[in-house]
Amino acid sequence: LMNTDIITVRPDITIDTVLRYLRRHEEMPDTTDNIFVVTRKDRYIGLLPITRMLVSDPNIEVRDIMDTEVEAIEADLDDSEVANLFERHDWVSAPVINKQGRILGRITIDDVVDVIREDADHSLMRMAGLDEDEDTFAPVFKTSRRRAVWLGINLLTALLASFMIGLFQDTIEQVVALAILMPIVASMGGIAGSQALTLVIRGQALGHVERSNIAYLLNREVIVGAINGTLWALVVASIASWWFADMTIGFIIAIAMIINLVIAAISGTSLPVILKAIHIDPALAGGVILTTITDVVGFCAFLGLATLFYA
Amino acid sequence: LMNTDIITVRPDITIDTVLRYLRRHEEMPDTTDNIFVVTRKDRYIGLLPITRMLVSDPNIEVRDIMDTEVEAIEADLDDSEVANLFERHDWVSAPVINKQGRILGRITIDDVVDVIREDADHSLMRMAGLDEDEDTFAPVFKTSRRRAVWLGINLLTALLASFMIGLFQDTIEQVVALAILMPIVASMGGIAGSQALTLVIRGQALGHVERSNIAYLLNREVIVGAINGTLWALVVASIASWWFADMTIGFIIAIAMIINLVIAAISGTSLPVILKAIHIDPALAGGVILTTITDVVGFCAFLGLATLFYA
Repeated sequence: LMNTDIITVRPDITIDTVLRYLRRHEEMPDTTDNIFVVTRKDRYIGLLPITRMLVSDPNIEVRDIMDTEVEAIEADLDDSEVANLFERHDWVSAPVINKQGRILGRITIDDVVDVIREDADHSLMRMAGLDEDEDTFAPVFKTSRRRAVWLGINLLTALLASFMIGLFQDTIEQVVALAILMPIVASMGGIAGSQALTLVIRGQALGHVERSNIAYLLNREVIVGAINGTLWALVVASIASWWFADMTIGFIIAIAMIINLVIAAISGTSLPVILKAIHIDPALAGGVILTTITDVVGFCAFLGLATLFYA
Repeated sequence: LMNTDIITVRPDITIDTVLRYLRRHEEMPDTTDNIFVVTRKDRYIGLLPITRMLVSDPNIEVRDIMDTEVEAIEADLDDSEVANLFERHDWVSAPVINKQGRILGRITIDDVVDVIREDADHSLMRMAGLDEDEDTFAPVFKTSRRRAVWLGINLLTALLASFMIGLFQDTIEQVVALAILMPIVASMGGIAGSQALTLVIRGQALGHVERSNIAYLLNREVIVGAINGTLWALVVASIASWWFADMTIGFIIAIAMIINLVIAAISGTSLPVILKAIHIDPALAGGVILTTITDVVGFCAFLGLATLFYA
């Protein structure tokens, strides 16, 4: 992200000297809004904004108008965190230093904009199993191959769900209404879980989600899941009871939905944190794992409870 | 997006005059990298980059070093298009003009960065039914209410799917394997469709998808859907035939999957374009409508074919 085309000056020279020094250049690097003030040993001290220099008395010294408030970026800082700093402070360029405080170069907003766009695009595209630099108009064969892999991974999820349903084959044969209603339990869990998942993945990208607040967030999401689970469970229970003229099936689907929405909230919130800790991209893997959980839990809770009640 | 704190000069004055004029200011507006060159009637002519002024002979005129290549932004241009221009040209600031070419103000990169972040965030959040300024740490009640609405909308989708399954109740009672396998057809369609949907929504945000190339894109996605549909249909057909020791069910699920993946490709590609044309946010409504289509088509194709073959 860094480039090395910087202009540096010492703090003890006059603005007039700086202006004469600049005039010796053929041209200045693109996106230069600051000149960097350094010691004799190239240690970063502060910024000299060009615009401030233009409105100052040429006879005063650099140290009188330089800005020492702006901290330099350490060279090993993560690209996304650099982008967050630029966004927060409305920077156009910022100095980069090594551990010893020596200036190495600068980062400019035009490159940071690319990082911001990629970061945000990354989550969106990865959640659909697409590469973030997937071309909208890439050739058919290349596109097919990439997507085939993603469909294959999702097929494993679907097969696992089918296998779970298969375990309750006898119960379904007995009460066919279960086959009709079971997709509702799984799909509501999937929707609720993906809301929590998306929120946490975006919170991670913006740097809002940390180890310190994950407990609060988990707690909040579980309460939200329980409230909405209960609310819609009652609605679905009423519809199911009326549809199949059977109070038991209404009761079973209500309990199964509440269980699945709470599990969905826990999974959706904790999965991105766990995946990030083990260096797996939450946007890529989070959705598949979440769907597997909400499908398996949804089908098992619903069909399992039904087996208990109708056996 | 525009602000009006601009500094303008005439083309026929010397750089030295400009420098003396600037020195009369207390300070210059934040993020000033260009001074705007205008006629006596405030018509925009070109840019005078501050850095270029600093390396020039003070005795030459503004017209000799000004940049007339950079076109000004028209005041009514869409925010996202402004952002695309800034990204393409690595601008830090750009002039804004009215229809008559008169300068009105300028747009600066710090505000454009917010637009870029919001644009990208918007698609990600809306696809999960979240508000793009949804706070990761908003209070429980506020969050629950918003998400309850989204779950309710998705419940209608799930109920419609259940209703379709209910139409084939007799067939399921006869062949319980159908209940076990049917989620595979629906879920593979959903995954394939959401890949096309995400790609087109992002293409719209980047300004890549237009009326002129939608036919090409639709054609490509249908081919990709047919290739991957056939590929995974064969795999699923083999598994299903072996699992239930029944070639017929393998044949039925293969045909249903190919139908659903092609329909998913058509829907995923055309929905964002149709929704945008009728001024509905594709990121918000696209996923729900797509899931409805892939669920209904998936269940109906699979159970409908089964009814024909097993009746």
